[in-house]
Amino acid sequence: MKLPDFKTEQWMNRYERQAVCNMTDTCAAPLSFLKLKELDHHHLLDSITLDYGVIPGDERLRNEILKLYSSGTIDQITLADGCLQANELVMHSLLEPGDRVITFTPSYQQFEDVPRSLGCEVVVLPLSEASGWQPDGSDLQKAFEKPVKMVILNMPNNPTGSVLNQELLLKLFSLCRKERTWILCDEVYRDPEMPSIADAYEYGISTSSLSKLFSLAGLRLGWVRGPEELIHLINVRRDYSMISTGPLRDTLGYLALQNKEYLLTRSRERILSCRKVVGAWLKQEPKASLVMPEYGTVSFLRYESDVPSRKLAQDLLEESGVFFVPGSCFDCEYHLRLTFTADPRTEEYGLMMLSEYLNRSRF
Amino acid sequence: MKLPDFKTEQWMNRYERQAVCNMTDTCAAPLSFLKLKELDHHHLLDSITLDYGVIPGDERLRNEILKLYSSGTIDQITLADGCLQANELVMHSLLEPGDRVITFTPSYQQFEDVPRSLGCEVVVLPLSEASGWQPDGSDLQKAFEKPVKMVILNMPNNPTGSVLNQELLLKLFSLCRKERTWILCDEVYRDPEMPSIADAYEYGISTSSLSKLFSLAGLRLGWVRGPEELIHLINVRRDYSMISTGPLRDTLGYLALQNKEYLLTRSRERILSCRKVVGAWLKQEPKASLVMPEYGTVSFLRYESDVPSRKLAQDLLEESGVFFVPGSCFDCEYHLRLTFTADPRTEEYGLMMLSEYLNRSRF
Repeated sequence: MKLPDFKTEQWMNRYERQAVCNMTDTCAAPLSFLKLKELDHHHLLDSITLDYGVIPGDERLRNEILKLYSSGTIDQITLADGCLQANELVMHSLLEPGDRVITFTPSYQQFEDVPRSLGCEVVVLPLSEASGWQPDGSDLQKAFEKPVKMVILNMPNNPTGSVLNQELLLKLFSLCRKERTWILCDEVYRDPEMPSIADAYEYGISTSSLSKLFSLAGLRLGWVRGPEELIHLINVRRDYSMISTGPLRDTLGYLALQNKEYLLTRSRERILSCRKVVGAWLKQEPKASLVMPEYGTVSFLRYESDVPSRKLAQDLLEESGVFFVPGSCFDCEYHLRLTFTADPRTEEYGLMMLSEYLNRSRF
Repeated sequence: MKLPDFKTEQWMNRYERQAVCNMTDTCAAPLSFLKLKELDHHHLLDSITLDYGVIPGDERLRNEILKLYSSGTIDQITLADGCLQANELVMHSLLEPGDRVITFTPSYQQFEDVPRSLGCEVVVLPLSEASGWQPDGSDLQKAFEKPVKMVILNMPNNPTGSVLNQELLLKLFSLCRKERTWILCDEVYRDPEMPSIADAYEYGISTSSLSKLFSLAGLRLGWVRGPEELIHLINVRRDYSMISTGPLRDTLGYLALQNKEYLLTRSRERILSCRKVVGAWLKQEPKASLVMPEYGTVSFLRYESDVPSRKLAQDLLEESGVFFVPGSCFDCEYHLRLTFTADPRTEEYGLMMLSEYLNRSRF
């Protein structure tokens, strides 16, 4: 199964370690293992035996995950090695060659290229910046003229931070209900105070992980919350690809979610501070604009210059250690993915260096 | 991509937790997290930040893995979520619909069904108990009459513990060299004192993990050691499915392999004790026989009775808590997968209960 290079990930892999000032990270400031261990008030770690553990995932952990949703049972949840693998498990379990899949651009490359690698026909609908990164309602309607097996969303979206507005979401549900179309929604950037697709639509599948708002990318712990028959299908497939996430990750994940208010407050405060920095900067930088998202850890900054995004990002990194993922990684030029998770002073410095660059580049 | 139920794994998932006396486990007695932590003399765990870490895997860890082979560089190694995912990454990276794949039976179901799910033509060659679970040389020769993309082996084999004899292995290399056929060898049961396919054959791919002889299944940490161009292909694919194994697992894996002599000695002693118990039992039990493997944690016991293996295994579990995987899970009747990793007294008790069952069942 051939897959092209994953542009954003390859960019991150290649350059991220050179960054002095990371302006593009999707994760809230990662926690240390020591800090996570401090949350283990009842010394659960001391009683772990490193066997395969409970195959579909520790029940205490699945119960904590369930609390992030407003409906369901723990049998509607299975664990994965991050949200990325959760998405892969869903797609590999449900999609067959020839199936039609709808997804959106700009978004996360996995949603287009994995279905293609499985021989699916992938319809990619544009999100329009002018309408706040929403798709066009008539595009959506038209895409359903032939049967659709799955719609793949990312809410909040990477890189735009956008979510489908209520009107479009209801329209999507009504289109999907006709043929029991699955909606896979990557909710890795979802704040638990937001609604979830898994609670709102009967064939809705929510995937997520502890990587972003919970600051624990290094745990590599994700999950799927969906209809029980899908979870069963995935569990059959997991026997071929991972068996279990193991008792260590399950216990640490449980500790994290038991302390989710602490973790979420930490991230929300950081995001709020960065949004203020970005808002103030935008007011005095006419060469940049942004659809400010309500949620999520990233946004998609538009800049005015004829320097392509890849060159701009490389120049900035070389000159000043300021690191962005260029819009070209999302097939969307003259944009940069901008984080809301940097230290606010770093965020300020990075934006200042970007201004400096934009104001000296020729038009 | 449709996959059938994984018979062995489903059996384990369904019944293993009922076992009082587990006679079929593939892992040497799992280590506790506390014990593993004790090996952290330099407090490496205290300096971990839970970000994505080094994407293809911590270099210290890959250096320790490299020591399990006699050739190569760390760029010929990438990490995975267990050996199962390592195998999946290799198969998904290299196989395309229509490719011919050779594998063997009885063996691990993943090797047949994953290539099939990818649209490959899978040629399954029988291993013959009469010849010590070796394939037939002329079967092998004949299978190469049409181009073969990949041969998939498991050495030592699950469930037989067998390895290809030297003559067949050299014949296989010579057949494979003609068309640069890949050999994927799942070496998860390999003792590092055994040779590896990755050192012996230029298109050889060794996959393994810390789950079996290193007693750390709960870490879910595996790897691929193969030619650098394959590792690059896999790393591209990993961006779509896992990103990294993360700094926590990488550090714990490093600690484990730094202390590998301790872990291996512990497992080898256990295996040796069990082999003695089994050897003594076989001498006085005419209704059972076994090709005693030289290495590995399991063997494939043949019994004389007209009770099918599934019924026998269910009866034993219900009556006495003695737990086996039946031969039917490997499409090979009147056999049971027998572990060498139980506590020797448990092993003795389980065999005694099996004798008791065999001697009362009707012929």
